[in-house]
Amino acid sequence: MNKQGSLILLIGPSGSGKGTILKELLLTPINTFLSVSATTRKPRPGEVDGESYFFLTQDRFRELISSNSMLEYANYCGNFYGTPKAAVLERISKGENVILEIEVQGAKQIKEVYPTAVLIFIMPPSLTELKYRLIDRNTEDKETVRARLNAALDEIRFAHECDYIVINDTISKAVEEIKAIISAQSCSSYIMREFIDEVLKG
Amino acid sequence: MNKQGSLILLIGPSGSGKGTILKELLLTPINTFLSVSATTRKPRPGEVDGESYFFLTQDRFRELISSNSMLEYANYCGNFYGTPKAAVLERISKGENVILEIEVQGAKQIKEVYPTAVLIFIMPPSLTELKYRLIDRNTEDKETVRARLNAALDEIRFAHECDYIVINDTISKAVEEIKAIISAQSCSSYIMREFIDEVLKG
Repeated sequence: MNKQGSLILLIGPSGSGKGTILKELLLTPINTFLSVSATTRKPRPGEVDGESYFFLTQDRFRELISSNSMLEYANYCGNFYGTPKAAVLERISKGENVILEIEVQGAKQIKEVYPTAVLIFIMPPSLTELKYRLIDRNTEDKETVRARLNAALDEIRFAHECDYIVINDTISKAVEEIKAIISAQSCSSYIMREFIDEVLKG
Repeated sequence: MNKQGSLILLIGPSGSGKGTILKELLLTPINTFLSVSATTRKPRPGEVDGESYFFLTQDRFRELISSNSMLEYANYCGNFYGTPKAAVLERISKGENVILEIEVQGAKQIKEVYPTAVLIFIMPPSLTELKYRLIDRNTEDKETVRARLNAALDEIRFAHECDYIVINDTISKAVEEIKAIISAQSCSSYIMREFIDEVLKG
C-alpha cells in the first residue's frame, strides 16, 4: 500500500512549552521527523549544515523563494528563515511524518500551499499559568512581560483555526496526546484514499 | 473546563469485523459508551429493556420520529430500529463519548443532523480477504456470497466520505487505532473551542 505521511505543525505562544514537548516527542518511536529549516544567517560554533539548519546565501534563498520552493519563510533582522519544500515532501512521499515548530504567520503560509497540513496548537493550561511562565523568564522587566502576554493572546486567537488543541498541563500527557493525533492522522480518509481505491479495484 | 464528548460511528461492510472490534474496544478504559438502539420488535428471551434495546411500541416510535427525537432510524421487515437522540446527547454533554455500530444509510442520516459525528470506516485488509471471510460464512450458496460482496463494495465506496479508515488486519491493531482516533478527537479544536475562549478571557 502506497501511504503518504503527514505534515504536522506545532504552534503555540512563548511560554506554551512547545519546544520541550517537541524534544520529548522526537525521543519516542513515531515515524516522525523534525523538519530542518533554512537560513541566511551565519552558522554559530558547533552548528552543522543540514542538521541545525541548511545554511544558504541570500541569493540562493531568494532563488528558492522565486521558484516556489519554500513552504514558508520570513525575514528577521535582515536574515531569511524558512522551510524548504523538497526535503519535507520527499519524506512525506516515503510515508514518513514531518513535524515542525512554527509561528502563526508561518503556519498560515504553509496551510495556504499545503492545505492538508495538520495544525496542533499547544495551549498553556490557563492564562494565569501563562503569565506565571512569562514572568518567570523575565523577572526584571514588566513592559516586556506585558508585550509577550499580548503577543501570546494574539497567537491563542489563532487556536480556533487549528485542527487540534493540546493543553500543556504536564509534558508527558501532552506528548501522549500528540502521539494519538499523529496515529489518528495516519488513518484519515485523505491519507487512506489510495488504499480505498485499491480495495475497490480488487 | 466544560468539554463535551464525541459521537463516534463505526461503519463497515459485513465481514469487516466491526462487531468484534467494538466488543474489544469497549473492554478498554476510554470513556466511551455504546449507544443503545430502540426497536419495535418483540424482546427475545434474555434481552433486557434499556440494555439490549429500548423496546418501544410502534406508536411511541412514530411519535419519536415526528418530534425529531431520533438521530436515525430505518424499518426492516415491518419493525423500526433507530437511535434515540436524548440518551446520546445527554452522555455527550457530560463529556462522555458515545459509539455506535451503524449501516451506511444510518450514518448518512446522523451526519445530516449531527455534523460533528466522527465516522470511522472499518476496512477489510483486501478484497481477497473480504471474499474469503464472506465465503467462510456461507459455503453453501454462491449467489448469496456474490450479493453480499456487491453490497460490501457499495458500502466501501462510502469510505471516502468518512473521517477515518481503520484496516482490520489484526483486531488489536484496529482497536489501538480507534483508541488513538478517540483520544485525538478529544483534542479537536471543535471540542476545545470553549476552553480556548476561557483562556482568552483569563
